[in-house]
Amino acid sequence: MFKQRIQQVKQKISKAKLDAIWICDVSNITYLTGFSNFSKEEREAYLLIGKDFQFIITDARYSEAVRKEIPHLKLFERSHQNPTEKLFESLKNKIKVLGIEEDELTVLEYKSLKKHFKKTKHFNLKTNRLIKTPEEIKKIEKACKLGDLAFKYILKKIRTGISEKELAYELEKFIKENGAELSFPSIVAFGKNSSVPHHQTGNTKLEEKHGQFVLLDFGVKLENYCSDMTRTVFFGKPSKEQQKIYETVLSAQQKAVDYINKTLKSGKKIWASKVDIAARDYIISKGFPTIPHSLGHGIGLEVHEHPSLSPKSKEDLKSGMVFSIEPGIYIPNLGGVRIEDLFVLENQQLRALTGSSKALIII
Amino acid sequence: MFKQRIQQVKQKISKAKLDAIWICDVSNITYLTGFSNFSKEEREAYLLIGKDFQFIITDARYSEAVRKEIPHLKLFERSHQNPTEKLFESLKNKIKVLGIEEDELTVLEYKSLKKHFKKTKHFNLKTNRLIKTPEEIKKIEKACKLGDLAFKYILKKIRTGISEKELAYELEKFIKENGAELSFPSIVAFGKNSSVPHHQTGNTKLEEKHGQFVLLDFGVKLENYCSDMTRTVFFGKPSKEQQKIYETVLSAQQKAVDYINKTLKSGKKIWASKVDIAARDYIISKGFPTIPHSLGHGIGLEVHEHPSLSPKSKEDLKSGMVFSIEPGIYIPNLGGVRIEDLFVLENQQLRALTGSSKALIII
Repeated sequence: MFKQRIQQVKQKISKAKLDAIWICDVSNITYLTGFSNFSKEEREAYLLIGKDFQFIITDARYSEAVRKEIPHLKLFERSHQNPTEKLFESLKNKIKVLGIEEDELTVLEYKSLKKHFKKTKHFNLKTNRLIKTPEEIKKIEKACKLGDLAFKYILKKIRTGISEKELAYELEKFIKENGAELSFPSIVAFGKNSSVPHHQTGNTKLEEKHGQFVLLDFGVKLENYCSDMTRTVFFGKPSKEQQKIYETVLSAQQKAVDYINKTLKSGKKIWASKVDIAARDYIISKGFPTIPHSLGHGIGLEVHEHPSLSPKSKEDLKSGMVFSIEPGIYIPNLGGVRIEDLFVLENQQLRALTGSSKALIII
Repeated sequence: MFKQRIQQVKQKISKAKLDAIWICDVSNITYLTGFSNFSKEEREAYLLIGKDFQFIITDARYSEAVRKEIPHLKLFERSHQNPTEKLFESLKNKIKVLGIEEDELTVLEYKSLKKHFKKTKHFNLKTNRLIKTPEEIKKIEKACKLGDLAFKYILKKIRTGISEKELAYELEKFIKENGAELSFPSIVAFGKNSSVPHHQTGNTKLEEKHGQFVLLDFGVKLENYCSDMTRTVFFGKPSKEQQKIYETVLSAQQKAVDYINKTLKSGKKIWASKVDIAARDYIISKGFPTIPHSLGHGIGLEVHEHPSLSPKSKEDLKSGMVFSIEPGIYIPNLGGVRIEDLFVLENQQLRALTGSSKALIII
């Protein structure tokens, strides 16, 4: 599979009239090699792929593993004695135009490449990851299913006195004990904390009183693929206003789904921006503030990928895309509700990958 | 404290003949604001600091939290309706030369800044973090102390049949149950896996046989500050060769410590490269391969900071610096030993912050 992906990239390189590409994005490296051990925070490896060569550049910490797991790439082991510049010099005549990831490469790295390769051009490998194969969809679905089990499990842990951090930790333990990782640090927000869409899970405790929001936004990472889901439940009976907020968010998500289904039937292009607006306008029409974030995002090896479902998005939704639909209403000093599910477009249908109940849950 | 840091930065800006700086590095944002909730994987915030202005640029997901926790910075809430370009335009006349973090800023971000600010210059805020305050040192020490407890705890969990992943998970649970985070994904390597310096913790299990290496490289993050420590113990009696490797690594670490102490006494500059070479040459002199990584690295808000203790380093070690000394010997198909401790230079003395035993441990 990975050899095939490299072949596809090579075709894309010729099409783009490039002689080679320089890949630094860790998820792109994983996408092309299957190797997922490089740090996301530091630059530990690069790929250099041209028509008739394919290198992985890393240091001695990784060379044994790379030789074993990616034998079809040629290893260039960089070190003080053997700097990457040596490789550049040896390929200088073969590379007139080099493709680079302008959205990932740092200015410092760019300047150092520029010393060897005069002409560079932006190259976007992330669009290759936009359309998922059935195998990739299966992996995301598997992660979603474990997320559903985690949600079911965590509902039983919600009780007076538990803190956001403790609840997040219970969630994490469940996911890890089932052999998976978190796809991002879980967001657990109690009461009015839920009015901050990206609340930092803290020491707030659930109190013995009515109508506390419990917002849970979490994801599972399984075999390198991510899930992402948000549910908001109530600890103690919600007020009429809280119920209205909940129902409005839920209907807004349905509006987006309806818009996609209707457009699918019509055979027209499904503009991501229009999906966003279908949900957003509904929320505004009910007298609530606009959603302070995009309606949704693609997902795969990373939690946030293309397409973007936002008012300014220029993308259209196509078969094989996997994305979230996650409207929310946030009222300062009161709280907020977000409901997020993952969907896949396939066989002219929209299918939910997350399966947890969206009925209003009171604990 | 954070206000004072921003004042220091302003002085540095004038000294460097800049009109303002554009900060994107998340750890630098935490350093200057104390706010640590922005993602490390996505660009969720920037700082723009000039002589008479100081902005934090983020989106509506964070604005409530930012207003509360960093009131001394002016919030620019970016959105589709209010793009950052508006801020740039309003400050265009005040900013002739803009400082940027070339080692962090992407080419795409750079190009977009260049549209508004013709002249940019590299600005390194990371050097501000090089010398730690007594308060910062205390935080790192606290993280190290919890790391020591974790090591003591984990020794009791090492048994026949346990896998690397299971052991890493026990370590993680202990650290999290003590209110801290991991500073990086723990490296647990059994047997010959330990010959890969950055082995990906996997499903290898401890067997009932003699002399299996158990390499544990892990760190604690407490109040945003990191610890980092490596110990290698033996499951079952080690062979003579394994013992020799262990003793050589331990002595190599001592050689580096001795070199620093000797140079401190002489009053000369302590070149980081020479510290590296003191340990490295000792290992080579005993007939083992050279260390396939640097001898050590600074640490603080990030696990890897300046200074770098490597053969090519141009830095010298100064009072207030905190860094690791971590020699290792790695023999393919046999295994490896690494011993890593954190040290601080203060009051003309080198002091270890990690306190776990380095006697050869057999389980």
